[in-house]
Amino acid sequence: MASDLARKGGSDGNATDGGAGSARALAAAESVEGVFEMGDFVLQSGATLRDTKLAYKTHGRLSADRSNAIVYPTPYSAHHSDIEWLIGPGKALDPEKYFIVVPDMLGNGLSSAPSNTPPPYDRARFPNVTIHDNVRAQHRLVTEQFGVPRVALVVGWSMGAQQAFQWAVSHPELVERVAPFCGTARTTPHNLVFLEGIKAALTADAAWEEGWYEKPPTKGIRAFARVYAGWGFSQPFYKQELWRTLGFSSLDDFLIGFWERRFLRRDANNLLAMLWTWQHNDVGATPAFDGKLERALAAIKARALVMAGETDLYFTPEDIGFEASLIPGARFEVIRSVWGHQCGNGLNPADSRFIDEQLKALLAA
Amino acid sequence: MASDLARKGGSDGNATDGGAGSARALAAAESVEGVFEMGDFVLQSGATLRDTKLAYKTHGRLSADRSNAIVYPTPYSAHHSDIEWLIGPGKALDPEKYFIVVPDMLGNGLSSAPSNTPPPYDRARFPNVTIHDNVRAQHRLVTEQFGVPRVALVVGWSMGAQQAFQWAVSHPELVERVAPFCGTARTTPHNLVFLEGIKAALTADAAWEEGWYEKPPTKGIRAFARVYAGWGFSQPFYKQELWRTLGFSSLDDFLIGFWERRFLRRDANNLLAMLWTWQHNDVGATPAFDGKLERALAAIKARALVMAGETDLYFTPEDIGFEASLIPGARFEVIRSVWGHQCGNGLNPADSRFIDEQLKALLAA
Repeated sequence: MASDLARKGGSDGNATDGGAGSARALAAAESVEGVFEMGDFVLQSGATLRDTKLAYKTHGRLSADRSNAIVYPTPYSAHHSDIEWLIGPGKALDPEKYFIVVPDMLGNGLSSAPSNTPPPYDRARFPNVTIHDNVRAQHRLVTEQFGVPRVALVVGWSMGAQQAFQWAVSHPELVERVAPFCGTARTTPHNLVFLEGIKAALTADAAWEEGWYEKPPTKGIRAFARVYAGWGFSQPFYKQELWRTLGFSSLDDFLIGFWERRFLRRDANNLLAMLWTWQHNDVGATPAFDGKLERALAAIKARALVMAGETDLYFTPEDIGFEASLIPGARFEVIRSVWGHQCGNGLNPADSRFIDEQLKALLAA
Repeated sequence: MASDLARKGGSDGNATDGGAGSARALAAAESVEGVFEMGDFVLQSGATLRDTKLAYKTHGRLSADRSNAIVYPTPYSAHHSDIEWLIGPGKALDPEKYFIVVPDMLGNGLSSAPSNTPPPYDRARFPNVTIHDNVRAQHRLVTEQFGVPRVALVVGWSMGAQQAFQWAVSHPELVERVAPFCGTARTTPHNLVFLEGIKAALTADAAWEEGWYEKPPTKGIRAFARVYAGWGFSQPFYKQELWRTLGFSSLDDFLIGFWERRFLRRDANNLLAMLWTWQHNDVGATPAFDGKLERALAAIKARALVMAGETDLYFTPEDIGFEASLIPGARFEVIRSVWGHQCGNGLNPADSRFIDEQLKALLAA
């Protein structure tokens, strides 16, 4: 089993032993994809998801003292392979130093999701999953599968940030450092409205058939993508035509080639399942905090670095900065960028460098 | 004919003659709705719109010297009756002092539009109309129908601002003052993308039938409205639940009762026709300016007051401020408000007061 391989890799020793060239080859060899079989998994909603699968990929090896684990959860609609830009030799998330676990979010199609769950919980019947559910599943992966006693860092972008906040709130003794960027610990009302918009666009397509489609509702997915396009980058990004730096030849080429392509790869029900998770994100809803965001964030013991994109239209610096101020000792940094929310997605080298440097400083602390 | 009545009203004298009480009654009596029959109207696109109708409403009377006319064009999807909050005794747009003409935008359903044009230019075949076309039609109304030699002020919000800019660019000798607020002289790329999103949401509904629907595509219109909701107000507006001040009982009540209601009243093809107009707005495209925004704005001779909403998500203060800087002598003011784009729609008393005061100062100058 792939997950056994990962465990094996983890107990073999320390990747930083090798030279730069051989380490690079080694690091590649050490990337392991796996699926953690969770069996019956009872969700916050009360549903039992049977034969629950948590897909993941690991990079690097667990050190002998098991102190070098990093958890890096996936953001909305992404697979683990979509966010590897943050990982690499010489980067903060260096597989030669760290054992990096990238768990796929429930609903993303690699982990249990509407698209891959057998009846009766398939497709439109897939149960509602919370961020809290995701973190409970990931916690089992990290502790039961990999035997990690303490996590050096939980880091994530966007919905990955939501999961990072939840890790720090749910497991204050286990998480040493937390670095959520471009995401909030509780979904704001405006963010919820933005998501209502993309949901309405997708489901306006009759081909969606209330989730029971046989053929994908591509018109709805394309509409969803076009709406998303306005939110994902900032006004000055479009004004300066920075999509040219990504290899697109016209604005419409960008809307089709970047945005429509991005979501046409995905299953409509999966997109809607993760959207529900996003809309209902709230660390305050963690049992023991009585719905109080302030109390939940105050309970974080991890050394926290919270970052926000200066021109992010749905995870605004104001909202993120406010939450950071509720975390004891948290450092709050603004990513000075016109790339909007996408400043945290590895597309703009300057932003990626800034994030990497901030993470290096956090890991050195 | 209603328009004859308006002309008659205009030549009778000056409304400020009456006392406050009687003037208020008089002002109501002086509001006249009419339709200007334009016959064949050749559009910039090359199409001839036959039996073109320009609906309007006037408030107050044209003074004997014909110097007190104000033009106040309608914004996106609105009818003239939707923007009367700015008009009233004691306000800047005082019908006791001014003769206020509110022309309905082509495409809005009162003026010629997909919904009211007979075949063959009906529905999906309605030709593309520009802001420039609108202003040419309005210029005929104001000069031919009302015999106005010089306009004291052209003022407008949002797409009304676009028309105001175009008036000042097309008729520098005729427009004394111009006050566009929460709108740009050229549609920005990001704004175009936002509009692509709402268009895609509406047209994802198969019931739209490429514009040849017999029954309205209400699912698509509701999706359009939900997407619009995120753009129309700001993040802090939703965070502070300011929709409560408008009489709504929950966020969803607001999305349905305000946003869905707003657009369900309208015809889908009309919405798409005006959306095209908006996307293609560019004073630089005025014949004689060679596509140069800078040259067009530099040609404005009107005393200009340009206002932007501090938290407007699609007509940003940065974009509007930049354009204002290109207009000789223009004053640029930011409306300090968390009501986003809707700060200019008469919903928040403090914003409305600010706008009114700014307009009073402009009219006094």
